[in-house]
Amino acid sequence: MALPSGQRISLLRLFNRIIKNDIRCCSGRAPVRKCLSKMSLYPPTKQKGEFSNCKSQSLFLYNDILFPCHSGAYNYLPLGLRALEKLTRLIDEEMQNIGAQKIAMPSMIKASLWKRTGRWDTPELFKLKDRHSKEYCLGPTHEELITDMVSQFGMIPYKRLPIMLYQITTKFRDEMHPKYALLRGREFQMKDMYTFDTDEVTAKETYERICDTYCKIFNRLELNFKKVAGATGNIGGTLSHEFQLPSDIGEDTIYTCNQCGFGSNVELIDPIEVESNNVSCPKCKSEMEKSSGIEVGHAFYLGTKYSSVFNVYYGSRYNEKILTEMGCYGLGVSRILQAGVEVLSTDKYIRWPTLLAPYQVCIIPQMQGYASEEFLEISNDLYDRLSGLPNLKNEVVIDDRITMTVGKRIYQADTQGYPNIVVVGSKTLKEPRMYEIKTPKISSDSEYLTLDQLIDRLSIIETI
Amino acid sequence: MALPSGQRISLLRLFNRIIKNDIRCCSGRAPVRKCLSKMSLYPPTKQKGEFSNCKSQSLFLYNDILFPCHSGAYNYLPLGLRALEKLTRLIDEEMQNIGAQKIAMPSMIKASLWKRTGRWDTPELFKLKDRHSKEYCLGPTHEELITDMVSQFGMIPYKRLPIMLYQITTKFRDEMHPKYALLRGREFQMKDMYTFDTDEVTAKETYERICDTYCKIFNRLELNFKKVAGATGNIGGTLSHEFQLPSDIGEDTIYTCNQCGFGSNVELIDPIEVESNNVSCPKCKSEMEKSSGIEVGHAFYLGTKYSSVFNVYYGSRYNEKILTEMGCYGLGVSRILQAGVEVLSTDKYIRWPTLLAPYQVCIIPQMQGYASEEFLEISNDLYDRLSGLPNLKNEVVIDDRITMTVGKRIYQADTQGYPNIVVVGSKTLKEPRMYEIKTPKISSDSEYLTLDQLIDRLSIIETI
Repeated sequence: MALPSGQRISLLRLFNRIIKNDIRCCSGRAPVRKCLSKMSLYPPTKQKGEFSNCKSQSLFLYNDILFPCHSGAYNYLPLGLRALEKLTRLIDEEMQNIGAQKIAMPSMIKASLWKRTGRWDTPELFKLKDRHSKEYCLGPTHEELITDMVSQFGMIPYKRLPIMLYQITTKFRDEMHPKYALLRGREFQMKDMYTFDTDEVTAKETYERICDTYCKIFNRLELNFKKVAGATGNIGGTLSHEFQLPSDIGEDTIYTCNQCGFGSNVELIDPIEVESNNVSCPKCKSEMEKSSGIEVGHAFYLGTKYSSVFNVYYGSRYNEKILTEMGCYGLGVSRILQAGVEVLSTDKYIRWPTLLAPYQVCIIPQMQGYASEEFLEISNDLYDRLSGLPNLKNEVVIDDRITMTVGKRIYQADTQGYPNIVVVGSKTLKEPRMYEIKTPKISSDSEYLTLDQLIDRLSIIETI
Repeated sequence: MALPSGQRISLLRLFNRIIKNDIRCCSGRAPVRKCLSKMSLYPPTKQKGEFSNCKSQSLFLYNDILFPCHSGAYNYLPLGLRALEKLTRLIDEEMQNIGAQKIAMPSMIKASLWKRTGRWDTPELFKLKDRHSKEYCLGPTHEELITDMVSQFGMIPYKRLPIMLYQITTKFRDEMHPKYALLRGREFQMKDMYTFDTDEVTAKETYERICDTYCKIFNRLELNFKKVAGATGNIGGTLSHEFQLPSDIGEDTIYTCNQCGFGSNVELIDPIEVESNNVSCPKCKSEMEKSSGIEVGHAFYLGTKYSSVFNVYYGSRYNEKILTEMGCYGLGVSRILQAGVEVLSTDKYIRWPTLLAPYQVCIIPQMQGYASEEFLEISNDLYDRLSGLPNLKNEVVIDDRITMTVGKRIYQADTQGYPNIVVVGSKTLKEPRMYEIKTPKISSDSEYLTLDQLIDRLSIIETI
């Protein structure tokens, strides 16, 4: 029912007068209609933060993204979980774009599997027993479990390779000294992917394809990253690359060559060169530059290290039984979430990789004086209009916390890092109605747009 | 580029002749273009099933939904995980429709929290220690953790209640005798929700609203359920309802009254009446009927049982400090997934709650003889066309496994339970092009439709 706007507003006032006598209004929440994305529904926290030298940790704790639980474990508050779920969807999309299939494996893994690969004595394993005294670990990674499962598929026809399986699940690591919230926690979200190929050539093609996809993911996240040669360590294999986000708080030391682009983790570099502080590029002999990085991804070409233990064979076109060649590929999902914010933010303001912002648009109605209900009504109309755009479904929130001043709400929206903040204020009441929009990542100034201009601007935002 | 169809097909043949010499074709996969939802990408399993009296367990194991890991733990294969993720989205949608906010809490919980509520000695708790010898359990439920967190928010303004927080995460239970795959496992997906209200009246309003939402969820899943009074057991509180799916393999005994509709778990009924096999309804005194059910949801009004232990207060309008009234609400997500299939399926054929089918449409191209490539090309066009419908994005799969006969693929699509199976066969080659569609849940007969009719039919399917 579209009434002339004057008439609508008087009906609205009448409605509000009625609803004020309604028991629901005792809750003190502004009587918003259908809109369910509103800040007043969020738990009101009183975060003091933890002492930390890590900007993103402080920002996450002060801005209702995380809430501390115990050493190395955090609760994701609603905004934090929204960002995490977006990152998960982005990774799903890119993994499935190269034909990978998503599965989910249990967290508990039988000790016997880890004993077969000789990894049971890894000190970071959390171990436990069930009531039958059987031993398990909580998986920090799943090479053993997946290889054991695939071995039970029987001999795989060569036509069905490569197999690329991945999961995005909670992993566990008994860190002696958890640090920097999600950057080094004891429970974390990881995307782990396992591939099975016919031979070294195709396995390395698969390896390149997945590394390319990792690059694409970091590019979509607007993150400056370095792909460097990595050590194979406990995972094993003969070829490995790390994806590092350059950052002062990074725990990895990496060397990169500005001449030829080659990069390497310090672990692969001659300790004598490192000590002398004079590292030359193994490819072009130029001097390499030292920096710190946060490791956010890792690719390993495993060869037959695991397939030979668990007997994963394929049947060749001549019906020979041949060991599959494996690779494994990790992305630290929760670590990327925080590391991305670490490298993009200022000390005071969260700046998300734009695609990951918990909401793309935050509408802030002025809430003071006689016109409060009008501001709220216009905000609700705007919410409906914007949420109806195909790209903004579930991407708009109204900050309807009537006890906070508009200035305080704008400040918080800015620190929480919404890419677009729309203020419904006095200029929105007069004809022509103008909406104030702030795009903090681009400019600290506001612009005033008409509804059509606002919709044009926001309808082209990419969302995930 | 739209070419006349004759010309398109000759170009295609040329293209296929070229691609056959390409190394990628050595993989033996049909050279499908953009389409990434194709059965040939799935891991080829050789499932033999486990011995079970449980239909859904056998169906899940024979049809590549689950793969056994160890007692009480299963791997979700790609189709199973797709169904689980749909159920998760459905629950998210309904929870957020009533203003609940999604969070995520760690799996490991400090022993000290469970000791405070006296629940540390629960025999089903998995317990473990970290390297500092600190004790934890793996959470089977999170009352302790969330109440402890919310207590740290400080005194909550009454205007901000109710608070409704939920998560959908892996829970752990050390079952002595795991049974029936996901129905009684040791790791499972649960939606657990916790609410905080001002007083008993509002807490019971919240309780009713959430029970209504549970009913709505089961209705959307087409599941016949019974809501019965339940015992409060280890969780505590004074009021509780269970949501039960009637089934012969259900482990719960429930009594329901056909007169007044009241129902109750046997645990609440006088054992003497139970023994005499003559139970009368506590409401209307009619005779009650006995049946078995699978418990899939549970609501508890907790009062101040937990808030008083952890000191969760709100500030009233007169600034008094008053304990919040809590409720907790569980949905066995992975259990619903399997129990839904248990009650809807036949011995041979999976019948999903329609919204949860891994794909809504399975396209099966005939693959024999000279016209194979034409069948495949038409299938790909159809895939593009259907996937382009707003409701069918990511809901269409092509079964391109060229080594399987079309009959075998149709049979498998039927046993795996796709609601719509479209066969591209000889009638699709001739003008007017007719597509064979099977909707197994409705009829065992096929219908033949034109492309426009097919699109009309499929564009109105509800998806999640």
